[in-house]
Amino acid sequence: MEEPTIQLAYALDTFYFLISGALVMWMAAGFSMLEAGLVRAKNTAEILTKNVALFAIACIMYMLIGYGIMYPNGGNGIVPDISWSFMFGGDNTVEDVLASGGDTYYSVMSDFFFQVVFVATAMSIVSGAVAERMKLWAFLLFAIVLTGFIYPVQGYWKWGGGWLDGIGFSDFAGSGLVHLCGASAALAGVLLGARKGKYGKDGSINAIPGANLPLATLGTFILWLGWFGFNGGSQLVVSNISDANAVAAVFVNTNMAAAGGLVFALLTARLIFGKADLTMALNGALAGLVAITAEPLTPMPLAATLIGGVGGVIVVFAIISLDKLRIDDPVGAISVHGVVGMWGLLAVPITNPDAGIVPQLIGLVSIFAWVFITSIIVWLLIKLIMGIRVSEEEEYEGVDVGECGLEAYPEFVGSRGGAGV
Amino acid sequence: MEEPTIQLAYALDTFYFLISGALVMWMAAGFSMLEAGLVRAKNTAEILTKNVALFAIACIMYMLIGYGIMYPNGGNGIVPDISWSFMFGGDNTVEDVLASGGDTYYSVMSDFFFQVVFVATAMSIVSGAVAERMKLWAFLLFAIVLTGFIYPVQGYWKWGGGWLDGIGFSDFAGSGLVHLCGASAALAGVLLGARKGKYGKDGSINAIPGANLPLATLGTFILWLGWFGFNGGSQLVVSNISDANAVAAVFVNTNMAAAGGLVFALLTARLIFGKADLTMALNGALAGLVAITAEPLTPMPLAATLIGGVGGVIVVFAIISLDKLRIDDPVGAISVHGVVGMWGLLAVPITNPDAGIVPQLIGLVSIFAWVFITSIIVWLLIKLIMGIRVSEEEEYEGVDVGECGLEAYPEFVGSRGGAGV
Amino acid sequence: MEEPTIQLAYALDTFYFLISGALVMWMAAGFSMLEAGLVRAKNTAEILTKNVALFAIACIMYMLIGYGIMYPNGGNGIVPDISWSFMFGGDNTVEDVLASGGDTYYSVMSDFFFQVVFVATAMSIVSGAVAERMKLWAFLLFAIVLTGFIYPVQGYWKWGGGWLDGIGFSDFAGSGLVHLCGASAALAGVLLGARKGKYGKDGSINAIPGANLPLATLGTFILWLGWFGFNGGSQLVVSNISDANAVAAVFVNTNMAAAGGLVFALLTARLIFGKADLTMALNGALAGLVAITAEPLTPMPLAATLIGGVGGVIVVFAIISLDKLRIDDPVGAISVHGVVGMWGLLAVPITNPDAGIVPQLIGLVSIFAWVFITSIIVWLLIKLIMGIRVSEEEEYEGVDVGECGLEAYPEFVGSRGGAGV
Repeated sequence: MEEPTIQLAYALDTFYFLISGALVMWMAAGFSMLEAGLVRAKNTAEILTKNVALFAIACIMYMLIGYGIMYPNGGNGIVPDISWSFMFGGDNTVEDVLASGGDTYYSVMSDFFFQVVFVATAMSIVSGAVAERMKLWAFLLFAIVLTGFIYPVQGYWKWGGGWLDGIGFSDFAGSGLVHLCGASAALAGVLLGARKGKYGKDGSINAIPGANLPLATLGTFILWLGWFGFNGGSQLVVSNISDANAVAAVFVNTNMAAAGGLVFALLTARLIFGKADLTMALNGALAGLVAITAEPLTPMPLAATLIGGVGGVIVVFAIISLDKLRIDDPVGAISVHGVVGMWGLLAVPITNPDAGIVPQLIGLVSIFAWVFITSIIVWLLIKLIMGIRVSEEEEYEGVDVGECGLEAYPEFVGSRGGAGV
Repeated sequence: MEEPTIQLAYALDTFYFLISGALVMWMAAGFSMLEAGLVRAKNTAEILTKNVALFAIACIMYMLIGYGIMYPNGGNGIVPDISWSFMFGGDNTVEDVLASGGDTYYSVMSDFFFQVVFVATAMSIVSGAVAERMKLWAFLLFAIVLTGFIYPVQGYWKWGGGWLDGIGFSDFAGSGLVHLCGASAALAGVLLGARKGKYGKDGSINAIPGANLPLATLGTFILWLGWFGFNGGSQLVVSNISDANAVAAVFVNTNMAAAGGLVFALLTARLIFGKADLTMALNGALAGLVAITAEPLTPMPLAATLIGGVGGVIVVFAIISLDKLRIDDPVGAISVHGVVGMWGLLAVPITNPDAGIVPQLIGLVSIFAWVFITSIIVWLLIKLIMGIRVSEEEEYEGVDVGECGLEAYPEFVGSRGGAGV
Repeated sequence: MEEPTIQLAYALDTFYFLISGALVMWMAAGFSMLEAGLVRAKNTAEILTKNVALFAIACIMYMLIGYGIMYPNGGNGIVPDISWSFMFGGDNTVEDVLASGGDTYYSVMSDFFFQVVFVATAMSIVSGAVAERMKLWAFLLFAIVLTGFIYPVQGYWKWGGGWLDGIGFSDFAGSGLVHLCGASAALAGVLLGARKGKYGKDGSINAIPGANLPLATLGTFILWLGWFGFNGGSQLVVSNISDANAVAAVFVNTNMAAAGGLVFALLTARLIFGKADLTMALNGALAGLVAITAEPLTPMPLAATLIGGVGGVIVVFAIISLDKLRIDDPVGAISVHGVVGMWGLLAVPITNPDAGIVPQLIGLVSIFAWVFITSIIVWLLIKLIMGIRVSEEEEYEGVDVGECGLEAYPEFVGSRGGAGV
């Protein structure tokens, strides 16, 4: 390519990366609203605090060490070389870009920006699952380890060019590396036990409804919007005809999968419960999005709708099943991101002839095993150091006052649930 | 143009289309928040369910048949050839784009993405008008027909190159094809009758205030933002100086019209009611946006402000007048999108010398007649099949529990309106 | 540059400007939600009305005269020539752009769009500080003067090429010209006195908690997202390698500063209050953003984190100190935008060798003096004309009913604060 073309293409790809990253950053607001809407009023300020703080922590830890682990100067495919850190920044020189003839096609800083918001997404998945009973500072300590170490290592295995990439594991935008990763860490966390009153001694399961469904709906829409950056940006290039077509296909398929997931979940819930359950519809849309994330490029729109639709059916049954197993996940995060994340990974070979079921299974098991085992160890260490669960009294009174010293809705007294279940 | 220029221009125009489409998709969240904020607490979860479900249905129906109807392979100008469907996707080949010399300037997939979010917008207008009394599944059945058939046919007449395009009807981004279309279907729907308690037997009109005005305000801001994609993307090209200037003019005029609409509506409400009525200000901003949508390119910024401002005055009087006619529209959708949509269509010739008042009137009447009459027929059929109105008891208790089996704000008891008016 | 390159670069830069402007426009929603979340329920509709109306007024006034003052055809560096107005629009011709060889690199209309949303940002800062006691129409009258005159004059001094630009004052995206400007006008406004009940006669300071912290959190996330347009767009060009790198660096640093501000404020609040105070965390993120705004380009990511972090510490102490001085700022706007805005200006020379502490101090003092003094005069004139403070009875009952004739949450009765403190 000639110089003006290289300059313009580099600029367009960098800008596309930054806008995609901004959309993914916006997903942090989506998770915050979704989780704030699905917990009880008395635990709302604390879940908000966790969400804003984990985003900031993820950015700082990934800058300090995470990005260097995930995209190292070298490594043996399993263990990366960690001699380099992003904290001092630095970018391609104009000379190097021109000399590359267009092979260096976007700014390193824009790549970091796009990557860092993915880390935060993985961590956001955890906060919802452990809501309403985990200590704030224990959670933030875990966030430091996950975003600085656990996530980047498995990220290196695939996107950093490690062994999972070598065996042909395929994960376009992270059904596994982001969503299953977050859900695996969440599952390790929820083994701390269910919320008081969730499961009766007689085997009963008590529904604990979310306090603010407009917020949960807003959060879902924010996530849906942000996912266009999440998947659309993962094509990494847009500056020529075939890549522009690819990005457009990713947008369409991402949207269709969400639509399919929503409709199928709504219908499934209607058949099972007899009602049009809004929270299931929302989780269905998110399930559709998670399902398509491993391969949003190769399906036709109709296939994308069905891949998302299957995700929407799975998520309803997963939520019901986890409840029967007495695994208490207040927002359904493990079902949406974990169970459906697995479905997304396994669905790749259906439409992508370059993918195989064996590498997908190996990737799935490896990610889950790595994240789940390291998370269990970290949670146990934190439990030893400071404890991870709030006192029974604080759980009853609500963690907002105990942890944050304030209330989310101080003027709106909940006479049917503000203090107890 | 030479190959690198064609490649880059195609990429930029496709990216511009996708970002514009993402902004319009975001309007779905805006309608959800606006409507959730303007209904009563007891009907909030149901209106949210309608909004998320209609978006998903619109995407699926438009993929299956709507896009094929609206942009067919052929047709006689009134009836399109429906032998083709988008459901299997497909896009321009690199060879074809290069061979076109730049005439094929964006991805088909990006065009679908941009178009599909418009369909959802039209349908979102309906949900607000029929809120608080219509059966959920009846509404969704109607959504299937509107998004798959009614909308695409009139869309074909103009944007698909049909007879309205042939006679010189002008509608840049859809004051008529989207907003008047949605409002006409809504008007047909609200003929099902007013909410209980809205109009007294003594001729009195009872205000039923919305439960959550911050949500309504948020929704308005979301719509305002999304409208930059709605109008800005409708230029269809941005990759050269004159089109870039045009897109910029559209952004400025869209913004100025919203500002004009808001200020004029606020002042009009102040003169009539003696107070700074927030809901009128919000509807004024939306009215300004609807008014400028038929022609956001040719006005100067001052003219755009005034076109929006007139929309802001009209909307206040339209809302008052519809109430006097006992046409119960809980969110003012028919006034904002229908009455002001007509004003937008008729205002085109003021600044666009290529438009004429006669084609505008023909377009206005045709769109209204087509959508209103087909909608009436569909609503009546649905009434026969399953009924369209919830029972009086369910309306009194709130449709959330009856239709969705849950409450939007379970902990916040409304002592002044939660159950009754 | 050759013609195709000029055309594409102009298009890309214009599009980048428009998207950046749309993100900044979105900040208006952020301020609305932040402020609506931090006031009491009874004053929520009024603060929303102020926020939507000020945005519209800012757009109209800046179109009519503000833009002409700030970017005039001429002037002596202190007083601009105001013979020109933007109200009739107009843009570069294709011929002129091509003849410029690429020096004219974006649409005038896109520049106006980007600039006008900055004016609204400055004005949004004021509304929070004077919340819960100022008359609506007095506030809007002030908005007319600030956005049409006070802001543009100091904007001309620097960005319009006036005397502050001449002496080497450096303010990349407006820590001074936007944030300190807004805060200075706010400080002049809050001298109208504290809210009833805020400060006891015995010297006590009463906390008045915000009614809806999810909204405040949402507002903070919106502002965080919008800031990528605010700072990222202020590079003004993206269409070549070095400018694309610069924009990417600005995105990264803006994000890191927000993260640093949030974490440091959270830790500071933890040390002082013993709790993880959510509102302090939110203000910390905003403080980080304000701090980096004067120079988001030259710092390394680690340095940006620390510049934001210092802002996060400052804002906690500033909020406590202003309260001790009995300067009642319900949302902390003067601390976040004023005190930390000063820190941002003074921090520029730390990383930018082209900046000096003396020009920064001169700029800081000049902006504050100009805005504060003219604002005091305007507030006093408004007080003479119509009064600026609501009656004690109206303040007790809530300004929503008195000013707007409606309530923000009519069904959610606040038993602990709806009417009184």
